[in-house]
Amino acid sequence: MNNFILKEKIRNIIDSNDSSLGRAFAYGIQFLIILSVITFSIETLPNLTIQSKQILHLIELFCVIVFTIEYLARIYIADKKIKFVFSFFGLIDLFAILPFYLSFGVDLRSLRLLRMFRLFRLLKLVRYNKALRVFTQAMIAAKEQIILFMVITLILIYFSAVGIYYFENEAQPQHFSSVFESLWWSIVTLTTVGYGDVYPITVGGRIFTFFILLIGLGIVAIPTGIISSALTKSVDSKD
Amino acid sequence: MNNFILKEKIRNIIDSNDSSLGRAFAYGIQFLIILSVITFSIETLPNLTIQSKQILHLIELFCVIVFTIEYLARIYIADKKIKFVFSFFGLIDLFAILPFYLSFGVDLRSLRLLRMFRLFRLLKLVRYNKALRVFTQAMIAAKEQIILFMVITLILIYFSAVGIYYFENEAQPQHFSSVFESLWWSIVTLTTVGYGDVYPITVGGRIFTFFILLIGLGIVAIPTGIISSALTKSVDSKD
Amino acid sequence: MNNFILKEKIRNIIDSNDSSLGRAFAYGIQFLIILSVITFSIETLPNLTIQSKQILHLIELFCVIVFTIEYLARIYIADKKIKFVFSFFGLIDLFAILPFYLSFGVDLRSLRLLRMFRLFRLLKLVRYNKALRVFTQAMIAAKEQIILFMVITLILIYFSAVGIYYFENEAQPQHFSSVFESLWWSIVTLTTVGYGDVYPITVGGRIFTFFILLIGLGIVAIPTGIISSALTKSVDSKD
Amino acid sequence: MNNFILKEKIRNIIDSNDSSLGRAFAYGIQFLIILSVITFSIETLPNLTIQSKQILHLIELFCVIVFTIEYLARIYIADKKIKFVFSFFGLIDLFAILPFYLSFGVDLRSLRLLRMFRLFRLLKLVRYNKALRVFTQAMIAAKEQIILFMVITLILIYFSAVGIYYFENEAQPQHFSSVFESLWWSIVTLTTVGYGDVYPITVGGRIFTFFILLIGLGIVAIPTGIISSALTKSVDSKD
Repeated sequence: MNNFILKEKIRNIIDSNDSSLGRAFAYGIQFLIILSVITFSIETLPNLTIQSKQILHLIELFCVIVFTIEYLARIYIADKKIKFVFSFFGLIDLFAILPFYLSFGVDLRSLRLLRMFRLFRLLKLVRYNKALRVFTQAMIAAKEQIILFMVITLILIYFSAVGIYYFENEAQPQHFSSVFESLWWSIVTLTTVGYGDVYPITVGGRIFTFFILLIGLGIVAIPTGIISSALTKSVDSKD
Repeated sequence: MNNFILKEKIRNIIDSNDSSLGRAFAYGIQFLIILSVITFSIETLPNLTIQSKQILHLIELFCVIVFTIEYLARIYIADKKIKFVFSFFGLIDLFAILPFYLSFGVDLRSLRLLRMFRLFRLLKLVRYNKALRVFTQAMIAAKEQIILFMVITLILIYFSAVGIYYFENEAQPQHFSSVFESLWWSIVTLTTVGYGDVYPITVGGRIFTFFILLIGLGIVAIPTGIISSALTKSVDSKD
Repeated sequence: MNNFILKEKIRNIIDSNDSSLGRAFAYGIQFLIILSVITFSIETLPNLTIQSKQILHLIELFCVIVFTIEYLARIYIADKKIKFVFSFFGLIDLFAILPFYLSFGVDLRSLRLLRMFRLFRLLKLVRYNKALRVFTQAMIAAKEQIILFMVITLILIYFSAVGIYYFENEAQPQHFSSVFESLWWSIVTLTTVGYGDVYPITVGGRIFTFFILLIGLGIVAIPTGIISSALTKSVDSKD
Repeated sequence: MNNFILKEKIRNIIDSNDSSLGRAFAYGIQFLIILSVITFSIETLPNLTIQSKQILHLIELFCVIVFTIEYLARIYIADKKIKFVFSFFGLIDLFAILPFYLSFGVDLRSLRLLRMFRLFRLLKLVRYNKALRVFTQAMIAAKEQIILFMVITLILIYFSAVGIYYFENEAQPQHFSSVFESLWWSIVTLTTVGYGDVYPITVGGRIFTFFILLIGLGIVAIPTGIISSALTKSVDSKD
């Protein structure tokens, strides 16, 4: 019985936004997430002094301890513990602390990439959001169309890459040496980023780009349109 | 009683678009706003003669005097004076004239940034607009979703910055020296501006950019879609 | 009476798409419009031989003669001649031939710009289109909102220009020498064109750009969303 | 009768997604399509060894044999054989294998372009998709508007090219030597790609670009908006 009351108390703090303690806990966790992300960014700065590195490490240590306690508490209060561990947010909570513990046994080089997993903490920021559930429903409703247009977009990008390869390969062998290199041009152009590091210079390549852009931009932008309207509709049907 | 009639007369001029005098006043103020903004722009031109500087100063002086009279008149006719002063347009009216008066007591360097507050005058241009109210309502209705996608967009931008930092840091330490520098690449790329001052050159960095662009562009463009459809709906429900 | 029959016959050819003669005439005019536009483009090529210039001039002469006959015929068959002359398509028909006749009395330099009026012929291509009428109605329905967002967009562009001027003026005086020069950066950035000829290099300027892009892109893209949904609605209400 | 049973069996494998054999066949074909596209890309890599070229050729040979068998089987099971051969997917199936067989009789140079036809295989990937049918219906419903905006977009691109030609021709004769060269700037700018290889440098050209971008971007983005909303509506009416 005592156990049950304790569980309820913890649940009140961790899982509920109604109590003032629960809200304080939620804001505290959010503050620590942003703090640890800022720490993570500062660590990448070149020419850090040893002292500041130590301070950053202490902040990181503190964050990980709190996140670990939170993770264990969440497992403790879950009715179906296994289900929670393998749920979406359960895994995020795990991945947010795992890199720290793994870094003890692993050498420094591979540790670098592991640290990136810490960014999963950011996903914890959107945990309690109802709007996210609406969005997920909208995505599921429009799933088939989004997949179709993703496939069509990929085909279009690949087709553009092959086309520009044939037009520009001879004129600019350093930029369009193979279809793989052309794919870089293709994605940068069809998303309209247009860095300007590679662009067609032959007349044929430019005319090809002309038509690809006229037709292609419409296709590439359609998934966004679908998501937006699915989102609007799922909000409507909720009212 | 006399006082009441005077108030009504001023209100008729300043607040109403029905009387021809009111319309003339509104157009006059709009003309002065645009005039003072043009003056503001010309002042930034290098190599101005002292004479033209004096003319610009005189125009500015005239605008400020009119705006000050307008501001005081608006306070005078307001039933709840305190409420008006701290209302959105009350504050804009104040910020539009404040920089001028503050510049007497302050030295020249900090004055430079103060002058930017004068741009608040531009917001006075949209004062009487009914469409703005419709837009505000639409924003409030879609508030939760817009905040969610702003947060997701920020997470995505940050995630891209960290990713590209790991891929490009060694190859281009001058452009991707830290996550902060990478954030610049991230925002310029995900908004599809693509200046071309920084771009990935490693194979890994390019493949990472490929996937970020495919997924990211859809996410970044969603808030606009939400606002547009909320706007359309709030217009519908008004009919 | 004879006159009336003639009018009807001409009207059948020029104004109707039902008779096969009317369709042939419409396609003929469209062919001539595109021909004269291609001629116009070829004329701008450098290093043209005198012979090819003469051929281009003959084609142009032929097109103008046909367009003039068409214009006079349209006036002839119009019931309210003055109204037609000053109608939208009446003016386009006039501007399409005017440059040619004016060029006799005018010297060569100003003639260059006059020739650009010939492009009005292109607008004749969309004359018979019903979808255009739907679009015009949609624009009228959403007029107030479009104007509001155009004004907000202009304010935003101007505000960005002033902001970047303060941040970048000292670091890059050659690119951000005044607010006017900064406006160029502003429009190129907020429309996401991003040529890469001007971009912020200071930390302050980059952070400013970061926020301007996050907020600004949504605002700038809204008018398109409004037009699209107004267009969709006006199609719906027509069914 | 025996023949009829055989037909049904083949149809069960090739055309149906209900039987497990049918699904296995469909996935197998999809795997071969992607395999042959990857092979195609690797072939364009410079400095391939003769050995790897032979391996790639063998994979290609295998893919073509399977696709040929599939094509013949599809003809065999079709009730109206001629109709299938000239149907959309019938032609795609043919174009997917044709380049290989044609390459025996043709010399090497023209063969290069022929190979691009192999990409038609990619279109086989979207064969069974129901969402594609919804999309096709949406396109047909909005056909008139899409054509109108395509025409308006083309007029706008051409008009921008002529305008910038007049403004920049004297200042940058190497980039804006004729209207044809200006068209390249026009498409790259109005689609907001903005490579940065050509951009206006005169004050007039920049002001012209300013207005073209303000008005033009809205117009260019409208077809996407139309397709998206037509798509959403055709999904609605299906429910």
